[in-house]
Amino acid sequence: MTYCVAMRLNEGLIFMSDTRTNAGVDNISKFRKMFTWEIPGERVITVLTAGNLATSQAVISLLDERTKVPHERRPSLLEAPTMFQIANIIGDTLKEVIKTQKMTGPESEADFGATIIVGGQINGMSSRLFLIYPEGNFIEASEETPFFQVGETKYGRPILLRAYDREMSFEEAVKLLYVSFDSTLKANLSVGMPLDLQVVEEDGLRVTHRQRVDENDPYFHTISRSWGDALKLAFQSLPDFCFGDDPA
Amino acid sequence: MTYCVAMRLNEGLIFMSDTRTNAGVDNISKFRKMFTWEIPGERVITVLTAGNLATSQAVISLLDERTKVPHERRPSLLEAPTMFQIANIIGDTLKEVIKTQKMTGPESEADFGATIIVGGQINGMSSRLFLIYPEGNFIEASEETPFFQVGETKYGRPILLRAYDREMSFEEAVKLLYVSFDSTLKANLSVGMPLDLQVVEEDGLRVTHRQRVDENDPYFHTISRSWGDALKLAFQSLPDFCFGDDPA
Repeated sequence: MTYCVAMRLNEGLIFMSDTRTNAGVDNISKFRKMFTWEIPGERVITVLTAGNLATSQAVISLLDERTKVPHERRPSLLEAPTMFQIANIIGDTLKEVIKTQKMTGPESEADFGATIIVGGQINGMSSRLFLIYPEGNFIEASEETPFFQVGETKYGRPILLRAYDREMSFEEAVKLLYVSFDSTLKANLSVGMPLDLQVVEEDGLRVTHRQRVDENDPYFHTISRSWGDALKLAFQSLPDFCFGDDPA
Repeated sequence: MTYCVAMRLNEGLIFMSDTRTNAGVDNISKFRKMFTWEIPGERVITVLTAGNLATSQAVISLLDERTKVPHERRPSLLEAPTMFQIANIIGDTLKEVIKTQKMTGPESEADFGATIIVGGQINGMSSRLFLIYPEGNFIEASEETPFFQVGETKYGRPILLRAYDREMSFEEAVKLLYVSFDSTLKANLSVGMPLDLQVVEEDGLRVTHRQRVDENDPYFHTISRSWGDALKLAFQSLPDFCFGDDPA
């Protein structure tokens, strides 16, 4: 399993992903699920992947043109004129990879599906954020749906719904993501540390901050512990219930 | 979809279930998912169901012996000597219903599955709580796993994990269940009001409180609104994050 979140803020884009992959519970590995293409000052593109790992890796390799020797690679992601076209390219690549694996392999119960979030900005345009389905089509984040989650999304969703605010600073957004990830990590063993964090400031046209958060990260520990306490306090602060004189 | 929770407390058992069922999002109905068998002073048994509605209803009807005319019904649930045997009877009935629907009907993609929670107490023994799988086998709530959820369990789970306490009063437990249900209702349209609430005090051997909570319940509204505010405050109370001098 996987958990990834990307949010649009007034200040820019923020991304977080875990790094655990598993086939069953006894076959667990660590893989990066966050990928970046960047021409500082011109464009910055961040991709988060969830789903079948072979599919995700094939898509990333194709986007990277890893079939070519390094000096001949000209990833089309770095040449596409708009973020919309970038989402299109990724969607087409994803769809193609899934189709190839399904049609040409031996029969399998796996569906090879993957879901991808892509966000970024190209010089002269504002930043955009898309969620791409295994079918290759996609939706864009909007005022009403300003963040996307993929993977094990449910445990960490209530706090995002309640506390997200477009106006929040990146620092507050990191705090929110930590809480959302902490709830998920506590509930699903197949989502695991370390976490990758990336911040892309609006009009910065480069990765502003990039961080790997591991098991020993003191701030993450503080958040995890304080959030437990804060939740209990919040819970206690709610008005008390009182049973009426209901005849049972 | 469905959301049901049952918790063991020192004071006794508490149950809550929603009432929405749906086939797709355009075919929504209301059905009770909480059922009670009671001989006041001798035994009290509460059942919560999640999954295929036809299966759940068939199981309840069989347990109730509704094939017989009313005065001939002697539900074995009311005669079984222990809660363990009651869980066994329900498990066997559930397994049988699913098997019959699968084997004798036309081929279908539906798996007719259902999961059942049963809790209660028989005079002279302490209360017990079981989770019964579609395969008919079951597990019992313990010190380590003192509550069960079925249906759409994930949105409402983090707060249960953080705030549940065996020592809590029924009043606090209602508050906790309201918060857990509120988070779920906010995130999944296929879980819906009204909610059924039932409290069975230890050694009371009858339903102590029984309540239907509808859209207009003032306490539920208060909790829903206050919880949003309390969460935001709790979130703001967390120590702030600060980006290091990480070279991006």
